[in-house]
Amino acid sequence: MRRITVLRLSHRVGRDERVTTHVGLTARAFGASGIVISGDEDRGVIESLTRVTELWGGPFEVRYVRDWRGYLRSAKAAGAYVVHLTMYGLPLPEVLEELRRVLAEREMVVVVGSSKVPREVYEVADANVSIGNQPHSEVAALAVFLDRLLDGLVFRISFSDAKVRVVPDPRRKVVLRRRETALAEDPSPSDDKLL
Amino acid sequence: MRRITVLRLSHRVGRDERVTTHVGLTARAFGASGIVISGDEDRGVIESLTRVTELWGGPFEVRYVRDWRGYLRSAKAAGAYVVHLTMYGLPLPEVLEELRRVLAEREMVVVVGSSKVPREVYEVADANVSIGNQPHSEVAALAVFLDRLLDGLVFRISFSDAKVRVVPDPRRKVVLRRRETALAEDPSPSDDKLL
Repeated sequence: MRRITVLRLSHRVGRDERVTTHVGLTARAFGASGIVISGDEDRGVIESLTRVTELWGGPFEVRYVRDWRGYLRSAKAAGAYVVHLTMYGLPLPEVLEELRRVLAEREMVVVVGSSKVPREVYEVADANVSIGNQPHSEVAALAVFLDRLLDGLVFRISFSDAKVRVVPDPRRKVVLRRRETALAEDPSPSDDKLL
Repeated sequence: MRRITVLRLSHRVGRDERVTTHVGLTARAFGASGIVISGDEDRGVIESLTRVTELWGGPFEVRYVRDWRGYLRSAKAAGAYVVHLTMYGLPLPEVLEELRRVLAEREMVVVVGSSKVPREVYEVADANVSIGNQPHSEVAALAVFLDRLLDGLVFRISFSDAKVRVVPDPRRKVVLRRRETALAEDPSPSDDKLL
């Protein structure tokens, strides 16, 4: 199955744009199928994630839902397993094997909050899972969760319809356009290789 | 040795507060010794990271440097090894064993940028390292880098002078004050256990 959707709760315009964008980009790069954003409706964030997907490839679904309770209820009714990432939950290593078994058979929704997460999220979740029990970041938590659950997929993932891709280099930025002509996307290291 | 300092480049007031705070919190929770912030001077971010360290424990050094070039030059002169995290660099798995050997003997400075990173950073770094070659987040990159380099220290770390700590729980927030009387830090799950 291996289909994972990230649910971002309580997005606030003017405060969370960049963090929510980072949550979305992390979801995509680490192997989730899409992100559902709740809280304030924010076209800027949705457009920015959509633009990245158009350029760097997909599929990666980005959408807004006003009613996250309804969304979670429907997802559970359709068989999804809900993981809530929280510093108060059980350490990922204790539940990782179980989550891998679940993911082989069911869709997974991974919930990440912003500041305060309503109590009912803890109750509706099938698992409350922590990446350490210190305060840090929902972006960090999501990255490590997906890295470990999907066994480093971030290092192998590719997007077939990408218009550009990076060629890893020890010293410089090397970016290729789809037709394999070189693109100096950023002028700062201006001696990008012509491949 | 195992001493890692994160250098956050090009912080911008009004745009990067939350992401830079997440970088700092991630550095602390995942086992770095401190963060050095460059770019705009921003007392709010420094105070917020300092407050977290006072409550949740340290040591974790937080400071601002105006001259990041001078900081990197001094660090290298004192023997530090500089890793620049960038989506254009070599995949972490290819260099991980080498970085572990380095860390056993030398201090490490891990550089994370904001939007555009000056070319000289690529050149002054001893290693340009990627956590995947897709655009995502410096917070995600730092988390996975430290998680893998320090072999999951985030799940074992403890801070001896912490005033509060979390007791992992499958369903609720359980927070203890240092004297082991229960603290309902957040009222939402209000039935925190009395331990």
